[in-house]
Amino acid sequence: MAATEKNVSRVLIIGGGFAGLECARTLAGDSRFSVTLVDRTNHHLFQPLLYQVATASLAAPDIARSIRQILEDAENVTVLMDEITAIDPVKKTAEGKSGHHFEYDYLLLAVGARTSYFGKTEWAENTLALKSLADAQAVRRTVLSNLERAELTDDEAERKRLMTVAIVGGGPTGVELSGAFADLVHRSLRSNFRRIDTSKLRVVLIEGSARVLEAFDEDQSEYTRQRLKEIGVEVWTGMRVDDVKKGVLHFTDGTVLESEAIIWAAGVEAQPLTAMLGVPLADRGGRITPQADLSLPCMPDIFVAGDIVRMKDADDKPVPGLAPAASQMGRHIAKILKREKDRPGGQRDPFYYLDKGFMAIIGKNHAVVKAGKLKMRGILAWFAWLFIHIAFLIGFRNRLSVLLGWAFAYIRDNPEARIIVNPPGTKVQ
Amino acid sequence: MAATEKNVSRVLIIGGGFAGLECARTLAGDSRFSVTLVDRTNHHLFQPLLYQVATASLAAPDIARSIRQILEDAENVTVLMDEITAIDPVKKTAEGKSGHHFEYDYLLLAVGARTSYFGKTEWAENTLALKSLADAQAVRRTVLSNLERAELTDDEAERKRLMTVAIVGGGPTGVELSGAFADLVHRSLRSNFRRIDTSKLRVVLIEGSARVLEAFDEDQSEYTRQRLKEIGVEVWTGMRVDDVKKGVLHFTDGTVLESEAIIWAAGVEAQPLTAMLGVPLADRGGRITPQADLSLPCMPDIFVAGDIVRMKDADDKPVPGLAPAASQMGRHIAKILKREKDRPGGQRDPFYYLDKGFMAIIGKNHAVVKAGKLKMRGILAWFAWLFIHIAFLIGFRNRLSVLLGWAFAYIRDNPEARIIVNPPGTKVQ
Repeated sequence: MAATEKNVSRVLIIGGGFAGLECARTLAGDSRFSVTLVDRTNHHLFQPLLYQVATASLAAPDIARSIRQILEDAENVTVLMDEITAIDPVKKTAEGKSGHHFEYDYLLLAVGARTSYFGKTEWAENTLALKSLADAQAVRRTVLSNLERAELTDDEAERKRLMTVAIVGGGPTGVELSGAFADLVHRSLRSNFRRIDTSKLRVVLIEGSARVLEAFDEDQSEYTRQRLKEIGVEVWTGMRVDDVKKGVLHFTDGTVLESEAIIWAAGVEAQPLTAMLGVPLADRGGRITPQADLSLPCMPDIFVAGDIVRMKDADDKPVPGLAPAASQMGRHIAKILKREKDRPGGQRDPFYYLDKGFMAIIGKNHAVVKAGKLKMRGILAWFAWLFIHIAFLIGFRNRLSVLLGWAFAYIRDNPEARIIVNPPGTKVQ
Repeated sequence: MAATEKNVSRVLIIGGGFAGLECARTLAGDSRFSVTLVDRTNHHLFQPLLYQVATASLAAPDIARSIRQILEDAENVTVLMDEITAIDPVKKTAEGKSGHHFEYDYLLLAVGARTSYFGKTEWAENTLALKSLADAQAVRRTVLSNLERAELTDDEAERKRLMTVAIVGGGPTGVELSGAFADLVHRSLRSNFRRIDTSKLRVVLIEGSARVLEAFDEDQSEYTRQRLKEIGVEVWTGMRVDDVKKGVLHFTDGTVLESEAIIWAAGVEAQPLTAMLGVPLADRGGRITPQADLSLPCMPDIFVAGDIVRMKDADDKPVPGLAPAASQMGRHIAKILKREKDRPGGQRDPFYYLDKGFMAIIGKNHAVVKAGKLKMRGILAWFAWLFIHIAFLIGFRNRLSVLLGWAFAYIRDNPEARIIVNPPGTKVQ
């Protein structure tokens, strides 16, 4: 970080997701701030479309963009790829895994969420997650490789295991993923194999509670279940996972499901960095409840934003872990910092969440949307989903490339990213 | 493979490159043949554009397509992803790593080339190759990660090592790669970093003989050297590598070059499967010289094609290891098989190579082309290069997506695929 000039505040942003990026963008060009954004990866990821990389519809660069590239015109912003391993809120410093030492006047912690196994960390080894690009490519690689192995084998039991995709978690990720997989194997890949019938591949969506998409209304959940069933997804609700062994799911009612592709989308928790701030955590998921302005109690120079925040909105409903909430928080914090430069000592505004609603796509051309009192479903909801996701994709080439990819895949039922780059088990140099 | 029906010949094609794929496509729909195509990967790779994945201009799915997808309408063709480990030319069988057993009436071996270290296999560990998609992604990951590390470090010597890309081998791959890297770091990335000046990154192209692009004419080599120099590539000709240690190249004249990204593009050799056919190999590179019809001496049921073939054309010049030569061979062999069904016992036609020429792109908008007596260079050659490469890219979406990617990158000097999916050293699950 550059040496502190007079009246220039050093802002350290940890995390280049929606919250961190939006904060940096709002501070960009304001020479009263010297901003450093640190992320473990070199790219901002458009997480809402991650499942499409997993299901071979999109290529990784379609939904990810170099953070430096996004911020290249922001001369007061320095982007560094590093992993923060320690924060000292008293000395106002942080340490990077690379050995780099960071100093700040203001800190924004926006490190996001990771997959939660509810304490059963050993389950991670026997399942695939869906939080990063590498995760998505691993899901794609596993499902496509399993089909290749199924085409080769003469062992019926093995073939059955290879031709079962189990998705644990009936939230939007699970619903979107299972719908896309059903479309892929039952429609697109049908004429690709000679020895197996891909329309027989089982896609099983598993949810512990009584219905999928719990954040939506009951009739929308029911609609979603119907639609998923129509396109060939088995929806198992009220089924609780008891244990996960290699290739086998055990349920509390004694049911056993064998599958060589178990995808875990059942829950998230905050990245563990939240435990370093010395404030009590708000839940077992490691999240933090900040003050109304998003700063920490007794630490007005430290802010939190995005998926690590647990707070309620004006209607006393929890602010969801969604991209719009994270962006709004990042922007709010940047505005507080700017305001304090304009009028030092003034009162800070509280954060108000503007609810943009929820949406989930179900297979090829259906979706459900819930935004306040507005409820939509079917093809109209699908168009709304399409429009909103394209509009918020960062970067022009990405947007056009994604749109084209979708258009072709839609017309020809033929997603083009069906390649296995690294065979399972290879080591990346 | 399906049981032999009367008069149906089982054709086993090993390798889904240009030769194998073209043979399968030519036999597609001819019910007199039951074709099995086996490849270690699930995709056909458009190798001429591999360097663009390495230099972050294109995404992997832009230049690779699922082999099953290409051949999905060919009902008499079965595609299997397996690695052949043994061939028995007497029993007419082959064994796959998966345990699968193959039987054939005709065999086409078209397994292509791999990187050659001229016997110094230990050099492979200290260099990056450029033959597969995984290789290309490793090159991209390494160069981008090195820049990130250079931006973080305060150690001048380390920064210098990190900011040197050494490319060994002045053939088309080395020339295209070095030009694209120079464009990337000296132009596109310039405004992305705050602590380092990417225009100072060294791109060194190393060639053991007296000139780059030896297959072209001398004035074209000289033109290429000039152009590369203008865009910021250091061209070292007549420099022979003596040893490759981790991060260090030692030359026979005592020169030492430190670089954290050493890319080896100095030579290729046939995949080792050629040694299993029981015929003498034509050179140390493991290639085979077939009969004029591309079958093996005394084994008229076994053919070879593509980069594993060493033979001369009608003008007594060696047939080059290029995509057009491989495709022509694959088609020739398929036609021989068809002809023999039409007129059993007839004479087989010899293979004639139709020289389509050579081309290499040099940085952003220059190229050299040599085709028979035709010689071109500069922007006209670049347009010829562009047209030919787009025209031969398999798959419509790929073609359009690549064209768009190029158009945007060209206009804005801003390639979009600058993402590091797996940080160096991670294990792919």
